Order: sequence, then C-alpha cells, then structure tokens
Amino acid sequence: VSREAFWCYVRFPDEEYERRLARLREAMAAEAVDAVVLSDDRLTWYFTGFGDVGPIGSPARPRVLCVPAVGEPAFFVHRSTELCVQEMSAVADVRSYRPLGPAPVAEIVAFLRERGCRRVGVELGAQLRPGMMVEDIDGLRAAVPEPVDASRAVWAVRMVKSEAEIERIRAACRITDRAYERALPSLRAGMTEHAVAGLLRRTLGEEGADDAWAWVASGRGQYDRIDGVVRERTLARGDLVFVDMGACVGGYWADFSRACVIGRATPGQLRMQELVAEVTGIGVATLVAGRTAGEAAGLVGAAMNERGLEFSSRAERYGHGLGLAVTERPDVWQSDGTLIRPGMVLTMEPGTWTEEGMFHCEQNVLVTETGNEVLSLSSWRLTEVMAG
Amino acid sequence: VSREAFWCYVRFPDEEYERRLARLREAMAAEAVDAVVLSDDRLTWYFTGFGDVGPIGSPARPRVLCVPAVGEPAFFVHRSTELCVQEMSAVADVRSYRPLGPAPVAEIVAFLRERGCRRVGVELGAQLRPGMMVEDIDGLRAAVPEPVDASRAVWAVRMVKSEAEIERIRAACRITDRAYERALPSLRAGMTEHAVAGLLRRTLGEEGADDAWAWVASGRGQYDRIDGVVRERTLARGDLVFVDMGACVGGYWADFSRACVIGRATPGQLRMQELVAEVTGIGVATLVAGRTAGEAAGLVGAAMNERGLEFSSRAERYGHGLGLAVTERPDVWQSDGTLIRPGMVLTMEPGTWTEEGMFHCEQNVLVTETGNEVLSLSSWRLTEVMAG
Repeated sequence: VSREAFWCYVRFPDEEYERRLARLREAMAAEAVDAVVLSDDRLTWYFTGFGDVGPIGSPARPRVLCVPAVGEPAFFVHRSTELCVQEMSAVADVRSYRPLGPAPVAEIVAFLRERGCRRVGVELGAQLRPGMMVEDIDGLRAAVPEPVDASRAVWAVRMVKSEAEIERIRAACRITDRAYERALPSLRAGMTEHAVAGLLRRTLGEEGADDAWAWVASGRGQYDRIDGVVRERTLARGDLVFVDMGACVGGYWADFSRACVIGRATPGQLRMQELVAEVTGIGVATLVAGRTAGEAAGLVGAAMNERGLEFSSRAERYGHGLGLAVTERPDVWQSDGTLIRPGMVLTMEPGTWTEEGMFHCEQNVLVTETGNEVLSLSSWRLTEVMAG
Repeated sequence: VSREAFWCYVRFPDEEYERRLARLREAMAAEAVDAVVLSDDRLTWYFTGFGDVGPIGSPARPRVLCVPAVGEPAFFVHRSTELCVQEMSAVADVRSYRPLGPAPVAEIVAFLRERGCRRVGVELGAQLRPGMMVEDIDGLRAAVPEPVDASRAVWAVRMVKSEAEIERIRAACRITDRAYERALPSLRAGMTEHAVAGLLRRTLGEEGADDAWAWVASGRGQYDRIDGVVRERTLARGDLVFVDMGACVGGYWADFSRACVIGRATPGQLRMQELVAEVTGIGVATLVAGRTAGEAAGLVGAAMNERGLEFSSRAERYGHGLGLAVTERPDVWQSDGTLIRPGMVLTMEPGTWTEEGMFHCEQNVLVTETGNEVLSLSSWRLTEVMAG
C-alpha cells in the first residue's frame, strides 16, 4: 500500500502538488512577489495535500504555508499534528510550533528573511479568509519589507482545474443528479422544508458523497430565499419546491438547483421555468475561453432583458466558480474582469421569482479548449410530484 | 405559527438575543469599548439569530453586525439576503449593500460616526476569524479613531452558556452517547477507518443530529493522530480503534472520544485505559467555578505526573470550551487565565498513546453553581467488539 492510498479520497498523487506549486510560482513571478504566506484551510490543503473534505483542526492551531519564489516551501504546523502532516504533506519541510492560538510569526519571518523575500503576499482580498488571526497577519506585515495581497496569484492557480480535479467535480455532479432524481418522487404534502433537506442530504450520502449540502425553499409568492435558512414550513399541494444542493467528492463540490411542484404545475409555472431554462442555456453558451466573466454576464443580462425577465434574485452574479468551495472566484458578473480559461468550472444560474414561486436551474459547466461541457445532466423541467 | 417556529431548530426566542446583547454591552463597558463590529458567521448568528447549523452564505457577501454601547445595533447584509435576514434577525435594523466581495466599510464607518463611537472593537485576536476580508478590517481600522480587539468582550459573553444553549448541548451529548453505543457493535475487522467514520456520522444523523462529525484512528503503535485525516486503513483483529465524534443540535456541538478493541483487549490496554479514565475523572473534578482554566490544567498535569503518564498528545491543552464550535475558548492549559464560571461547558481530555494504541476518554462537562455535571454518559471502558 503506497502512502497516498491511505487517503485516496482526499490526497492526489505527488505530481499534482508539484504542478500546483510550479503554477503558483509562475503566477507569483507575474505579480513580482517573492513569497506567499497562506493559512486558509482550503489553500494549505490545495498546495500541500494535508487536509480533509471539510476544514480540520482547531482555530487554536493555524497551519501556515510559506512558498518562496526560489527554493523549497515550508509548512508551519502545531506540534500536536506534526507527525500526521509529515505523513500526508507533499511539502517536505514541515516545521512545528508549540504555543496555542497564534501562528508562529517570528519563525515565519525568519524563514522569509533567510530566503531573502522582500515582497510578501498574504491573504488580504478577493474573498480570501486567512486561517490565522488578524493580529498574526498584522505581525507578519509589520516585519516584512513589502507586504502585498496574495489573492491574484492564488486565484490564478486555483480557478483553473486539473484533470484530477475535474474528475472529482464530475463525480460530484453525477452523484448530485442521481440523488436528486431518486429523492424527488418521495416528496409529499405535509413534509417540512427541513425534512426535505434532510432527505436530500441523506440520499447524497447514500449515492456516495463524502459530504453534502441541501437547501430548500417552498411555496408560492415566496421572494428569493437564497442564503435564507431552511424552515419548518410544511409543504402543501400546489407548492413549488425549489432545491439547491450538491455532493462533495474528495473535497470538490457540485452546486445544482432544480424545482418541482407538489401536484400539477400551473401553465404560468411551466412557462416561467421554460423561460428561465432557456436563458440559462444561453448563459451556459457564453462561458467560453477568451471571454471575460464580465462579458459573459453582459450577454446573460441582455438575454434576460430581451425576454422581460427581471433578475430578481439580486445575487449580483449569474454564476460563480466551483471547486474546493461551493462558491469561489470568479464571479460571473459585470464587475469581474477575469478571463475565462479552459479548465475553469463555473455555474450558470440566472434566476427569478414570481408570485408562483422561485425559478432557477443552476448548471455546472466545464470550460474546454473548444467550448464547454455541462456537468449537471438532470432535466431542468419542472417535475410534477403526483403522489404528493 | 409564530415567526420563530419556522426555524425552531436554530432560532431561539427573542428574549435570548436581548439577554445576549445586554451581556455584550456589559462586557463592552468593562473594556471601555464604544462599539464592536463582528463578522464571523458564528458570532453574527449568536447575536442576531440569523444563521444556520453550519455557516451559510458565500464569502462574497459578508454579514457585519455593529453593536454600539448606546442605542440599537445595525446588521449589514448583502441585498440578496436582506428579506431573509429581516424575517429571522432579532436585530431589527437590517441594512443592505450591493457590491459583491467587500463589506460595506464606508456605511459601517458612517454608522459608527453617527453614534459617536471612538473606541471600536474588531475581531483581531483570541482565535477569532472575521467573516470579512483583511482589506475590509484594514479599511475599518483606518477610519475609526481608536480600533481595538473585540475578542475579550465577545468571549466573555459566548463562553458562558444560557439555559437554552445548555439544553441543546445536553441533547447533542445524549445523541452522541446513543449513536456511539449503537454503532460500536457493528465494527468488524476488514472495515476501513473511513467506513467507520461514515457509519458513525450516519448513526448520529439517525439519532437526530442536525449535523455530525466523526474521526477514527486505529491500530497499535500509532502515534497521536488528533487533527490527522481519517484513512483507508483496514481494521485488523486486535486493533485498538479510537473514535472522536459529536452530534450538532440546533448549532451546538458535543465532542466526545472513546475506544474499543476488535477482539480481546490486552491487559496493558485495559490498564492504560483505566489509568487515563482515572486522570480524566480527576480532571473533570478540577473544572469548578472560581478557579482559572490554567489552575485546573496545573492540577491535571500533576495528576498525570504522579501516575507517570506522559501527555503525549502534545495538544497543549487538557480541554477546551464547547458550544457553537467543537473547540472554542477557553483552553484548559497553564497559559489561559480565564476564570471558570457557572454555565461554561468544557471538555476534559488528558490523553496518551503507547505502543498499544491511543488512550483518551473525552468528557463534556457543564460547570454549575455548586460543582459540575458530566454530560457525556457512555462508559469510558475499553469495549471489546467480539463479533469482529
């Protein structure tokens, strides 16, 4: 049994991490950055191979990866976890610290000094959240000659997925499709949104998800409830039931939405779902290499306007990146100038709501050299659950 | 149906939030802080009532709660989620912003100025992690007269649990006990650690957990694997199987560890488990009001030394707070001067490992006016799973 086989559901082969670090160094060169210091749990996992499907460890023991432009990186971890990290990390230079709470800022600064790093990138912007305290980030910035934002370099690498990553996202989408199709016919009037979400999560697990999320909004005349909380509201006959859900496979997520009606759908509901699906299809076609995320968003917005559809979800984006997080960079929105590249996995989800329910059929899309491929295959049609 | 009944598994009655805010203002007065600005998802949920069992929403849309010492608080949220937050939030003044990514720093600063706040607490230290970007924290600090750390005030409130919170933690511990006792007899030689963790999580769900975590380390001669990753390692006859697991009920966690042997335990294993359980019992007795966490840790360390037990887990703490996170402040360790108070829920887990396995029986303990109460009731004995 090879070392990697022990963690085969989360750990990629060493070569994957070598390629990621090489790509990071290229992105750092483009930004003229001498080193980056990363502590977000998803980022240290991404670059070292140490991590799990969900964040592990305690905020009392931050893990900090220092990647200099020249020479080997060093991974600073609490001594309680040192041996586990050594087993699993693709970064060989694992250094341990002892106090509980703060990151080992003095040791990190000494390492950067030793390597002659002046311009040092830390997690400041672009939706990054460091896994060490702001106090530690302050200490680090005070001690290096020129602290800068690491986010451009980091996202340039993470936004473009490798074959191995795409395989996991593809598996997550397949499981999500299957779980959705299997669970849907069990919905009944009298169930609560909370119970439906539980059923979806359990079914995702049964279909092979390592982790799962599911979110449900039901009823007519509901305003957009995205980012709301699943309620104890009881489903009634005639309700439109919107579900947003995703499997996690080896740490990579699907993000998929569909809807059904308990009983017969009204002509208005059927028409609106068809219209939103049509715009979603147009939106999917905009996600091609060479265009910016903002340009794609402009085209989606125009397609909605032409059809008199209001983008009432007010989400400020028609889609987003997908991968180690359910939502990550880039944002498919006018303000985002990110160039779309082959290997990006993006969602497309222009939505609207009316008095008759929420209409939204989120697709997961892989950008290829020649166009793109839709990874979420379940029908966008409004299913009528007749037994309910 | 009342408003609260819709989210009865996460939302407390309004009075709970009024008491929390009143206690926060007391803690702010003790620190001479004019306002605190909070964005960690667990903290905004704790003080406003808007939130779910796990973090919800996207890092692209931070939610920021401003609590001035005088006058009503304001809750800044992205406009896509404004109506949902208004439904659920106990803080009535919900203000929305539109751009994706950054927090609405200018609006927050204007609010603080309007209220005459000079000394403003933000999430800088003590294991806090803001839900907005460091760039936003920087912008906020640059614009207020005297930025300070909010962590002391925040933890002074959150560390002491209310009756309603204790009820949830008690339920989480009960479910964890039941799931552990029900799943354990199903363990068999030939199962992987990964499969055992999945079984434990599923059983926690079946017993009523809203969310669940489980972690497994097996085999003899294993060094401490806390914070390691569950492996595909196959259980063999004679293995000691250590499990660390917990149910989540309405957002509140249990954190519990026990162990079993596949087949017959050796006399050495039985003796070591008994010794660790004895020290754990002594440790539980140290967790009483009026003592500091550091003093309690000193007593546990002395009890280990007397028995020649090395604290080989190197975790740098014998226990920690428990509640909205599986591990939170305080740390039961010499360096933590936090005064133990009635209403705190703490873990006690002095552990060790030898060539024969990992020995660790984590207890969840409620500190009361007159002593304490152990909430995790399953036997600490090393179960022998004979069918395996």
